[in-house]
Amino acid sequence: MLLTVLDLAGIAVFAASGALAAVRARLDTFGVVVLGMTTALGGGIIRDVLLGIHPPATLRDWRYLLVPVVTSLLVFWLHPQVARLRRGVLLADAVGLGLFTVSGTATALAHGVPTYTACLIGMTAGIGGGALRDVLLREIPMVLRKEIYALAALAGGVVVVVGDQLRLPGAPVAIAGAVLIVTIRVLALWRRWNAPVARGIGT
Amino acid sequence: MLLTVLDLAGIAVFAASGALAAVRARLDTFGVVVLGMTTALGGGIIRDVLLGIHPPATLRDWRYLLVPVVTSLLVFWLHPQVARLRRGVLLADAVGLGLFTVSGTATALAHGVPTYTACLIGMTAGIGGGALRDVLLREIPMVLRKEIYALAALAGGVVVVVGDQLRLPGAPVAIAGAVLIVTIRVLALWRRWNAPVARGIGT
Amino acid sequence: MLLTVLDLAGIAVFAASGALAAVRARLDTFGVVVLGMTTALGGGIIRDVLLGIHPPATLRDWRYLLVPVVTSLLVFWLHPQVARLRRGVLLADAVGLGLFTVSGTATALAHGVPTYTACLIGMTAGIGGGALRDVLLREIPMVLRKEIYALAALAGGVVVVVGDQLRLPGAPVAIAGAVLIVTIRVLALWRRWNAPVARGIGT
Repeated sequence: MLLTVLDLAGIAVFAASGALAAVRARLDTFGVVVLGMTTALGGGIIRDVLLGIHPPATLRDWRYLLVPVVTSLLVFWLHPQVARLRRGVLLADAVGLGLFTVSGTATALAHGVPTYTACLIGMTAGIGGGALRDVLLREIPMVLRKEIYALAALAGGVVVVVGDQLRLPGAPVAIAGAVLIVTIRVLALWRRWNAPVARGIGT
Repeated sequence: MLLTVLDLAGIAVFAASGALAAVRARLDTFGVVVLGMTTALGGGIIRDVLLGIHPPATLRDWRYLLVPVVTSLLVFWLHPQVARLRRGVLLADAVGLGLFTVSGTATALAHGVPTYTACLIGMTAGIGGGALRDVLLREIPMVLRKEIYALAALAGGVVVVVGDQLRLPGAPVAIAGAVLIVTIRVLALWRRWNAPVARGIGT
Repeated sequence: MLLTVLDLAGIAVFAASGALAAVRARLDTFGVVVLGMTTALGGGIIRDVLLGIHPPATLRDWRYLLVPVVTSLLVFWLHPQVARLRRGVLLADAVGLGLFTVSGTATALAHGVPTYTACLIGMTAGIGGGALRDVLLREIPMVLRKEIYALAALAGGVVVVVGDQLRLPGAPVAIAGAVLIVTIRVLALWRRWNAPVARGIGT
């Protein structure tokens, strides 16, 4: 139940990030909906394929289909000013990363995999949809770019795994994990937390 | 039996579209064959992974391997004039989209998934190979571009699902679905049916 | 046992090729580690998904995670001169291709798939990680470029399959297969063995 709510919320914000990126790339209605759906459903499908869930849950539940289509169309009709599109993509992507990483980690734990496997599958679920979106638009995925990204997802996944080990109630732990991921990611973007690049790579 | 014929025909035309795109991108013989095979087999492999068929049928049957290799080499040796390459890629892609969407939807129904799951898996099978081809050549996939694409696949998938619900004979329904997809797609390309882009995105 | 050693060695050199490519693309520490891990683990994950191994072995064994992280960080701190980065990527990629193709083919045979299916899954395992690396950096994958690549992998896979059919001991056959792949690939790069491009494609 909690997982379904997290998943649906993550699907909505990832659909928004994909649709905003598509509007920014000047795709038409169809392209906006297809990219919104791919971004929204990609991470969950990769998670289910890795866990051996056939067919993936996101393809079996009509709500998982309706939410990204409606969200993408809403973004298309009501999209904000062009100048704010990039910020919107980044923010929606951060919220989606938080929700999907947490729900992916919890889903993997529920399937009885080891804790670090659950963290990795959760990270993959959180990162996958956005990476697909960027590759399809021929951009280098955010997860490879400057600001902290995979590490933020890992931190949230660890919260879920530790909470599970301590047998804490699932809902507050999941929310804490997601809030942690979004906070790290937004702070990293806002304060431009960068890691060093390799020495000897001149400009 | 019908599914195998549809699959093999789809593999041949998708191999042709991949090989033509590779010739256009000036890849050499090896690149042409590899891209032809990837385009031809990609959609079916994604379909089987989503349905939990291990290993994917396209990797188990030698005909599924021979057809794209021979097709790619034939395209390489006999390829049409350069000026027509783009049109050839688009046409072969449209026929492959029709055949693979229909065979993917029917395969999914035969595995007992819900009807809308079958439509989605069929669409993914039809769209997947061409999307791989375009991403590997660093182009934005056709499914995100201007003309009706995913919607054409959806229409054909719905035909197969409705025919299955009404217990109509499989072969004519499958052919009708594939013809519908190819017709919509060719008309959309020919008449340049475009959907609107978002307001406020100036030139 | 032998498979694990081959896999870990392949993971280390593929991590090095991904990390070097990331340094070359001026990614920061996080990007270098993420690309190193993706390149190192991608091929094995694709192999396990195709064989129906859930969750993939590379996500269940902590050594498979530690090796690429450490390798990527070492490459980041100790990376060679910029001028040699491209050569380093190519060489590490060749060794990884050899090790992963051989271990992938042997793993597939151990799961009882037909011989040509095993060859194909081995090739996919060997090619997959490097293709992911190149797509994420927006480069056309090496497997589509000029020098012999997929054919080198196929040759090594055939060695493993023939050795298996003749019931030869696994370790020397695997090493012979990997050495053959690396030798073909290095010779092809060094002597610039190219295949022809299609006629009629002017400059």
